[in-house]
Parts: sequence; structure tokens; C-alpha cells
Amino acid sequence: MYENYRNLRSTFPVFNFGTPIATLRSKRSPIQMERTMENDGRKRVVIENLQPSIECGRYPVKRCEGELVTVSADIICDSHDRLDAMLLFRREDQSDWDSLPLYHKDNDRWESAFVVPQSGTYLFTVRAWVDHFGTWQHFLASKVNADQDISIDLQAGAIMLEEASKRVPPEFSRPLIDRARIIVDASEPAAALLLATDKEITAVMRAYPDLSLSSEYSPYLKVDVDSKKAVFSTWYELFPRSCGSEKSMHGTFRDCERKLAQIAEMGFDVLYLPPIHPIGITNRKGRNNSTKEGVGDPGSPWAIGSSDGGHKSIEPALGGMEDFVSLINAAASYGIEIALDIAFQCSPDHPYVKEHPEWFKKRPDGTIQFAENPPKRYEDIVPFDFECEEWKELWNELKSVVLFWIDKGVRIFRVDNPHTKPFPFWEWLISEVRNRYPEVIFLAEAFTRPKIMNRLAKIGFNQSYTYFTWRNTKEEITSYFNELTKDKPVEFFRPNLWPNTPDILPEYLQAGGQRASAVRLVLSATLSSSYGIYGPVFENAVTSGVPGTEEYLDSEKYEIKSWKEENGPLKNLISKINRARRENSALQETRNLRFYPVDNDYLLFYGKANSDRSNIILVVVNLDPFHSQSGILKLPLAELSIDPSQPVYLDDLLSGEHFVWNGPQNSITLDPEKSPAFVFSVQRQLRQEMQFEYY
Amino acid sequence: MYENYRNLRSTFPVFNFGTPIATLRSKRSPIQMERTMENDGRKRVVIENLQPSIECGRYPVKRCEGELVTVSADIICDSHDRLDAMLLFRREDQSDWDSLPLYHKDNDRWESAFVVPQSGTYLFTVRAWVDHFGTWQHFLASKVNADQDISIDLQAGAIMLEEASKRVPPEFSRPLIDRARIIVDASEPAAALLLATDKEITAVMRAYPDLSLSSEYSPYLKVDVDSKKAVFSTWYELFPRSCGSEKSMHGTFRDCERKLAQIAEMGFDVLYLPPIHPIGITNRKGRNNSTKEGVGDPGSPWAIGSSDGGHKSIEPALGGMEDFVSLINAAASYGIEIALDIAFQCSPDHPYVKEHPEWFKKRPDGTIQFAENPPKRYEDIVPFDFECEEWKELWNELKSVVLFWIDKGVRIFRVDNPHTKPFPFWEWLISEVRNRYPEVIFLAEAFTRPKIMNRLAKIGFNQSYTYFTWRNTKEEITSYFNELTKDKPVEFFRPNLWPNTPDILPEYLQAGGQRASAVRLVLSATLSSSYGIYGPVFENAVTSGVPGTEEYLDSEKYEIKSWKEENGPLKNLISKINRARRENSALQETRNLRFYPVDNDYLLFYGKANSDRSNIILVVVNLDPFHSQSGILKLPLAELSIDPSQPVYLDDLLSGEHFVWNGPQNSITLDPEKSPAFVFSVQRQLRQEMQFEYY
Repeated sequence: MYENYRNLRSTFPVFNFGTPIATLRSKRSPIQMERTMENDGRKRVVIENLQPSIECGRYPVKRCEGELVTVSADIICDSHDRLDAMLLFRREDQSDWDSLPLYHKDNDRWESAFVVPQSGTYLFTVRAWVDHFGTWQHFLASKVNADQDISIDLQAGAIMLEEASKRVPPEFSRPLIDRARIIVDASEPAAALLLATDKEITAVMRAYPDLSLSSEYSPYLKVDVDSKKAVFSTWYELFPRSCGSEKSMHGTFRDCERKLAQIAEMGFDVLYLPPIHPIGITNRKGRNNSTKEGVGDPGSPWAIGSSDGGHKSIEPALGGMEDFVSLINAAASYGIEIALDIAFQCSPDHPYVKEHPEWFKKRPDGTIQFAENPPKRYEDIVPFDFECEEWKELWNELKSVVLFWIDKGVRIFRVDNPHTKPFPFWEWLISEVRNRYPEVIFLAEAFTRPKIMNRLAKIGFNQSYTYFTWRNTKEEITSYFNELTKDKPVEFFRPNLWPNTPDILPEYLQAGGQRASAVRLVLSATLSSSYGIYGPVFENAVTSGVPGTEEYLDSEKYEIKSWKEENGPLKNLISKINRARRENSALQETRNLRFYPVDNDYLLFYGKANSDRSNIILVVVNLDPFHSQSGILKLPLAELSIDPSQPVYLDDLLSGEHFVWNGPQNSITLDPEKSPAFVFSVQRQLRQEMQFEYY
Repeated sequence: MYENYRNLRSTFPVFNFGTPIATLRSKRSPIQMERTMENDGRKRVVIENLQPSIECGRYPVKRCEGELVTVSADIICDSHDRLDAMLLFRREDQSDWDSLPLYHKDNDRWESAFVVPQSGTYLFTVRAWVDHFGTWQHFLASKVNADQDISIDLQAGAIMLEEASKRVPPEFSRPLIDRARIIVDASEPAAALLLATDKEITAVMRAYPDLSLSSEYSPYLKVDVDSKKAVFSTWYELFPRSCGSEKSMHGTFRDCERKLAQIAEMGFDVLYLPPIHPIGITNRKGRNNSTKEGVGDPGSPWAIGSSDGGHKSIEPALGGMEDFVSLINAAASYGIEIALDIAFQCSPDHPYVKEHPEWFKKRPDGTIQFAENPPKRYEDIVPFDFECEEWKELWNELKSVVLFWIDKGVRIFRVDNPHTKPFPFWEWLISEVRNRYPEVIFLAEAFTRPKIMNRLAKIGFNQSYTYFTWRNTKEEITSYFNELTKDKPVEFFRPNLWPNTPDILPEYLQAGGQRASAVRLVLSATLSSSYGIYGPVFENAVTSGVPGTEEYLDSEKYEIKSWKEENGPLKNLISKINRARRENSALQETRNLRFYPVDNDYLLFYGKANSDRSNIILVVVNLDPFHSQSGILKLPLAELSIDPSQPVYLDDLLSGEHFVWNGPQNSITLDPEKSPAFVFSVQRQLRQEMQFEYY
């Protein structure tokens, strides 16, 4: 699609603006201006419903580097005049606009597209005008066909060409004047019509229109362009303190470095570490979230801050800053980026509590309010008071935390509970960071109500945790992912799917064990182009929970674990599915997801194709981890541009098996003992006898 | 519904604003402000998707006097805090805001409603804030239930009550301080909880919230409120020159006055006259649109202007200005308003052409460009050039035309071909007129592409002609009217349905004659609350067209007609259907239209209920004018709040017949020889034995 537009552009004369695009902005609202004579009332063309936009441009839409932005708008005018229009776009930090022609599709809807090559913010708008010369050409043809006298019309056209000769580049000026003369002098109406409407004259007149009465859509719309990883990323979550070589020995960043080869081998490209900062002593939680700390209990990494420092410090047991930088560099050599956890909250021992008591809420007895959601109490944590008088200082300090770690080389942040800090704070913070580092990625770890989840994505979070964890049936998965990929969220909400997290061991995994884990792994890795696992636990198929809860039994949040070096039972499947993701561009997008019919409610059938359909993946998952399930599925041949009269060759990327199917209806069986799913790569037919050169 | 809100309001303490509503408007866009520290970052509450609005508030929504505006918005905030919100509204020309509480419905959507009593423009917005006292009440209850210590919480609550005592009216101040004390001193947690959460304290604290960190939706949304007639009107179109008592004698306004009694008797309340101005001589059209004028041909009334004057003059053969004013007054005595035609175009003889040649386009030979849409030519008309340099003078002159006739007493204008004049012109003109005369109604006579029709309605036209004329089948009618009454247009587009006009004798009427006319009459009068007929022709069931066209044969546009005094064949049906409209408030709205199932594609079944469902009309129309049709229809008992175990009593307002139906499924037959339709009034059950007082 990109190539098409490029070609089109090179054959079409480049638009030239005699004058810079006027900014029509005024202190008055558009509605006020239309109701006065403040605008030039002769600007008759109206541009409505410019897309893509979120809430009329209140928020930017999201794309990643190299993606196409397809722009469309309704463009109308009074009377029978012909219209023309252009798409204008530029990087926000540059002043020159680039332009492309818009084309009328149908029902007064016009369309074009531009590519956003680099991360950063882009602006776009549409300009449209009455094409008086095109109208004249059209009327002239009708009159010649009806044998009406056109002598005065030809004079009118000649005047337009002469006027245009003053605004075109010098090389076109003389030819236009010459053309004006020979049109008027043409012996026959038919000859005049040909001279007035041929390709050359039409191209030049369209390329250099009179824009003095053109209309421009206001306000400009925005596109936030992210790094490719914002769309396609494969996350592995690991507690570095559990990387020690011996049981219950506190692991270090150096230990962690030794795990990188394995993690890379499994195909992950983001290594996400829970908070690495000093952990508070006061009210430190013991094993299994006990309020009574045991001897030597390390505490929850989310209880940030002690006499050893706060959000800009490293827990001494993990190593020093040079060890952390070494880890970043070692990871980079494996193609892995380190993601840090941003948890804007403090242990009661955090230096902020003493140095900036004004940032915390005090109770009538003078003590600082700890976190609570009654009757639940989180005594090892005190929240910031975002309604405090000194909010600007607080905001700036928190920004400096992010910039501190960016300075050390971190570019990805997983933000803990963003929905417990104000929206305006995040919108400001992310914008401030993006202005200097547009490639930085923020993942919102919010599990809350839908409109809050969406708002966080709209105001800037590049990826979001989802309800995937609790969507298990075919109906649940289909309706939720249709919402994410077909409705409004597609322009701003990028799902990052997690079958498990340190906080969530879902009921389905507790019930179905290793086989259920395999099902959820395939779903998360193929439904979305970004997914992650809370690694060692998942790899080893640990699925024992605290009864009646979604908490892991003996959770790693409160104690040090030691993971065996040898392969966990799911490692092989993880490696295969990640390889499929790396090698198939169809799996590197999310908005291309489509569900297809299969006549068994335990089987889920869906597919993805890349933009030119050179890569097509079809997935069938057995949602039942206990029993074999069979069904008839219907291949969407037309949608996938597959010739229905030809055989379809499919390779299952999990089992390595091959299939040849004839026609759309095909029977399949999935036995959970063997495999949770088929991940078919659709092979193109190479050729038939008709394609031979000498056929 | 109105009454409900009124009651609610009187029991709820009236909100009081310590400070006037701050206007947060700034020269910078909201998106820019959010990304800086320009706003107070402690305003944590976010208001999204405020409705009703058209394109995020770019256009006002429409209501009529006395209607309810139901307002809703998504209101969210970080964390677990309780929220509260109010609806603010006022007339645009007044400065004081009125307010009502908003209520949470579900999924973070809040709702309220206000009444717009008079024509004019109203503003509304929503304000929302964190309800810290409500949050405290909620947390306190949770803690008491969990047997947690609440002594410090009680102190915190007491502080909030003391702070509130400073902002409430004096009579509440002392009680709040007293309450603070007894809460802290309460002997038991349960007693403290009761004192902290009872109705009185909750009502006072909700009514006088701390608004210092409240958020307000921006920009204000607008409601254009029209006179009741903009929604409910019954139009009769009449050429006054055909009102003469003898054939081919030019009728006068005085002749027209003598027709008023009949028109009122049939139940019309708007009498619409085609242009009443002097008609041009140059290129005057003859009978049947001939370019050769016959001797004594009167010309088309839309070729406006001659040496006798232009848009502010009256064709002398019709009478003088005093006759016109007399007609207005006589009509008013019958409850009829006169609607004038606004056709902003000129005959070549119009005084403007000589006095303001700068308002017209000149051809290279110096002549003025007549109207054309090649190969079609309209030589008796020259259009204004809305791209001329002197556009402001032209706009002001055209405005003065409208004001001239308003000054004579006209309040309704049917605007001819508004889609051939620029949108910005109409938006300005209508706004200027409404500022002084908000009761004025403009009907857009545009038959063009959908987005242009919609745009005209959005920018201010109070009523619009529609595609109804070409929607004849069940599928066509259902999908078109669902679009008008359920989709976006419901907020701005008010359909005015015409089974015929002087320009359009539809194929269906030409084929089906009088019976087809009867079908279309019932449809137009019941589908929409505004409809009209091109009167004498329709009443007399004239359906002869120029073959292969939608033009009337011997069209009244080009010649003088004389209509017999006696009853036309459709007069009786017209009177009945108009009486049904007058007597049933359900038929006086359009957005309440709902289609219901019937198992025959020639039968159309639909209904309307008024807002409290005290009036319900069900309509079944036989779309086949030639044959009897039967079907089983399904009454929507639940939707109409009819008890399915009880009989339903129906009166057909056309035949006078009575029906008793048991249960939802009922068989009906319509014979076009007898009637085109049933227009059922649903009768309420009076009572059963259970309702007797002594049962």
C-alpha cells in the first residue's frame, strides 16, 4: 500500500504552495466565527469528519515507525462545482508541510495516506477548494455533446489558463499561454474540447490550483508515532533476586546476566524487572503477604525506599549502578531491552517521607496516611497526595525519576497501577518524556473499569494490560478482541497480553495446569503482537494458588526463589511460538486480527495477514485443556485472496506437520495431550501451467 | 419525565456556587493545556463524551419549546474516591447558571435532564468533583463492618464538617459544627457511623460541595430551541394566482383569503405560498416549461424581479402590501401561519442586475451568466455570484430581504434550493435572524446528496425536505426512517414529508392515482410530525405527468389554474388524518417512531407513543394501491407498556371501527378500495375488579 502511494506521488506533479498555509486559528471558537463575517465567506468548501481522530482531535491517534496513516474526510460544497483536495502533513517539530492529493471514493468521502517514518509527533489536515477549471472542462464536454455554442466558454477557459500562467513555475507558464490561444482558435468544438481536457493540461492545472479561497480543516489532527517495539514486543518478567545460583541466596544483576542467553533463546526481546530499589523495613510484608515479617524476609519490591535510598537507587543486594548498566548492555547484545517498573509509591522509610512530608497526606494524629481501600490495608506503603499544594514540585521530581533511568539506558517502563495517580499527571509526564525521547514506551498496568483503561491509553500510554486474563470462552475472547481491534480503541489502545503475572494466577491455570498454560500461551502470543509471561513460574508450569484467590502460593513477591537451570516443561512451546512471531510479519500486528467460523464452541479459529497478504497465519486453539475437540472450520478464502478452485497448503508451525486442503470446509481435531493449537502458515501456490512463460 | 425531574429537584437542596463558574477558556487548545502545567493539576476528575452533541459541540442540537434535554457524560477519576457531579445550564443571553444533580447510571455514565421552556439558544455543561466526604462515609462503613479502629477517621470527618460549615448558608453552619462534635464523642462505632451517614448530613454535604478542585467540561454545548411548530406542522401549498373565481383569471390575495376557511377545515396550520414577487419578462417560460412564452403566460414565480420590483415587492396582479398583511391576519384568525418562499435568484430584469452588477458573474462577452447545469439551461434566471468581491454587501442585502418580510408578520420561510448557495452564508443568515427572532422557522428545500442535506440541517435549517418522495417499499421506508430517527440526524434533522410538490409528481402517484395518493398521504402524516401537500392538485387527485418525467402535465408553475370549490376526492381523508394528528400527541413528534413486525412486505406497521405513554398510535399501511393485502402483525406489548394478559382495545381513526385483540399476534386485512390504512388509537384498560377499592 505504501508503495502504491509512492508511485502515485511520483507521477503526479508535486503541489506547490505559493503562500505558506495560513493558520486560521483565532481566539474565537469555529462556531462563533461561522456566525459572524470574520471568516472569508467566499470559502465555500466544507470539510467534515476528518479521520483518523479520537474525540474530534482531543487525543492523538497512535502509529509506529513506517506505518501508513490512511486519512479520509467528507468534502462538500454548494452547487454543481467540481472540487479538489490535498492532504497536508508534517512532523510537529518541523515547519514545512508535505502534501499528497486526495481522491474521491464515494458519497463525498475523500481519501489519501501518508507514511510516518520515525518516532515522534506528526500533524495532518486537509485542504479543499472549488476546482473552477475542472468544472469548466466538465461543462464544456456536456455542451459539446449537446451541440451547444461554446465560443464564449472557450474564451472563459483561456482566461483561466492565462491567470494560472502567473502562479505556475516558469517552465509551465509559456505553455499555458500558448494553450489558451490555440484553444480559442480551434476550428472545431471537438478539437477545442480535446485541447482543453488532455492529460497534460489537466495535470498542470490540478497541480497548481488557485488556493486563495480554499478551506482548511481545523484543528490539525495529531499522530503519535512510536518505535516498532510499541506494537511488536515479547516480554519476560523476572525477579533478579531469584537469579541466585543457590536456594534462598539473594540473586544479583550479575546472576541475572547469566540468564540472558536462555531468555534470548526462547525468543524474548523485553526483560521486565520488578522494582530494583531499596525495600522498606517498616511494616515489611512476610511470606504469603503476612503482616508479620519473618527473619530474613526480603519484603515486596513494590515497598520502595529505605535508608539506602529511593526511586533513583538500587537495592544494594542486587549490585551497584555499574552492574545495572552492565546488564543493560549485555541484554542489548542479545537483542533484549530492559524494562523497569515505575511504581510511584513509597515505603514509610523512603527518604521522600522525611525530606518532603508535604507530598503525603497527614492524619489528624499527625501520622502519615498509609495506603488503604477499606477494609483492605497496605501498611508497608504510603501513597503520594496528588492534591497537595506542592503538586508541581512532586510532578517534577517524579519526572526526574523517569529521566534518571532513561539516562542509564532504559527505554521501556511498565507503570504500576497508573489508575491510582491522576490522569493529568500522566498526560503531562508522558508528553514531557516523549518530547525528548519519542522512542520511550510506557506500559499501563491498570486493571480497572473500561473507561479508565481507555483514558490511560488515550492520554499517552503506548501499551496496556487488558482483561484477557479473565476472558476464557470463545464468546468472551471474540467479543473482547473485536472491541479492541474493530471499535474505537484500535486507534489508541495497544493490548499487551499476559497469561499470568506475579499478582494473577487465573482460575483457568489453577484448574488446568500445564495444558491450560499452553492454551493461554498460544492465545496471548497470537491474538496480540505484544504479550508477556511472568517467566520462570510460567515456564515451569507452576499453577498452585492460595486457595480461593488468584495469588500464587508462596509468592515470589515476598520471598526469594531459585529456578532450576534445566528446561521447564513449557520452554519448547514458548520457543516455537516466539519463533513463529519473529518469522511471520502477520503476527507482528494486532489490528489485523479476524475471527472465522468453526462449529465447536471449544475451538477458536482466527487469522492474521500482513498488509500485502504475502504472509498469512491461521490459528485454531482448543480452549478445552482436558479433552480432544473436533470441528469443521470454514476458511475465509476470498478475504485472504486465496483462489477457491486451488488447493491450500498449510504448515503447522507448532508440530511441523503439513496439510493440503481443497475448498473452504475442513475438519480438524485437537488433542490437548499432543498440542493446544494449530498455528498454520498458509503457503502460496508457486505456479500453475498457465503461469509458464511459454504456455 | 419533566415532572419527575421537577419533583426531584424540589426535594434536593439547591446547589449554591460560592464563586461564579470560572471560564477555563484559554488561547491554547485543551490538548496543549493538558500537556503543560497551565491547568491546576490537582483537578483529578475527567469528563468525557458529553451528550447530546454534534461533532463535539461544533453544531447545536435542536429541541423545541418545553422539550426535555437529557444530558449524559462519562465521569471518571483515579483511585477509589467517590465522585459527584452537576449539570449546569442557562440561556445564552443570560449570565446566571441553573443547576441540577447528575446521577450515576452504570459503567461510569452519569445522567440528568433539563427543560428548555422558550425558543432561543441554551448552553449546558457538566461539573464534577471528588466527593471527599462521601468517600470518607463509604470507608467508615467498611471499617466499622470490619471492626477496625475508627477514632482517627472520626476526627478526620469532623474536620471536613467544620470546613464545610464555613461555606454553607448560615442556617446550616451551626448544625454542622454540632454534628462534628457529637460524631467524635459517639460512644459506639455503630452510633458514630449512623450520625456520619444519615440523610440530613449527606444532603447538606452533597448540596454544598467544595468545588475548588472541580472539573468542568469544555466547551459548553449548545441547544437551539425552536417554536413548537418547528416540530409539529401541517403544510398546504397554494399558488395564490390560481385562487381566482374564474378560469385563467389571475387570482389575488383577497381571493386567497376566501380559501382559508376550507384549508383550516381540512386541518392545516401553515399556508405556504410560492414566490409572490414580480416575475421577469426576459426569457419568460411558457406553458409546460416551454422556452417560447405564449401570449398572456404568467411565467414562473421563481423568476423573480421585473421593473415592478424585486424580493421586497409584490407582483401587482396579486394585490398590494396591505392585501398581503390582511391575508396574514385573516390566516392567523384560523390558526394558520403564512410561509413565504425564499428563492435567492433573479430574473434578468431584477432591479439588482442593474443596481448591483458586481453581485453577478459576467461572461467574457460582457453579458451576465444565466443559470446552467450543462447541457441544461435556465435562461429566465441569473444566479448570484457568492464568490464576488462584494460578498458582504450581498449577504447583508439578502438578510434585509428576510427581515423585511418578518417585519410584515411572516415567521416561516421555505428556502428554495439552499444547496446552491454557500453553507457559510446560511449559517450566518439563520444565526443573525434567530438572534432577534428565535421563533422563525426555515425549511430547506434541498434534494441533493446526503451529507449536503445533513450539513444544511446542522448549520441551522429547522426543517428539511427529505428523500421520502422516492422511498416507497417497506425496506426503503424502514431503513430511511430508522436513519432519521435513531442515528445521528435525530439531533439536528427534522423531516418535513411531501407526497408531492409542484416540481415532483412521483412515479408511484402517476401509476397508482388516487389510491396511491391516499397511501402516501397517510404515510407522510404519520411517519413525521411535519408534512405538507401541494394542495389543490393533491386534494383533487391530479396525477397526470409529462410522460417519462416527474413533472405535472400543464404544470401550475407556468400557467394559472382554477380549482373547483367543491370537495376533491381526497379531502375527507385529509381532514381525518389531520384531526388524528391534532388530537394525538403521539403524532406530534418524529423521534418516537418505531417499526414493528408484520409478515407481508406490502404491509408497513409502525407506532408512536408520547413521553408518558398516555397516548399510543399504531399504524398499518397497505403499500399496494391495487390489491387487498393481509398479514399477521405482532403488537409490541412490552414496549408500549401494555399488559399481555389483558385485552387491547383499538379504535381506527380513519374508519371509526373498533377492535378488541387478545395477545400480541393479530391478523389484519387492508383493501385499498376501502382504506389505505388503519390508524389505531390504543385505548387504556379502565380497570379490573382488582382495582375496585373494596376488592
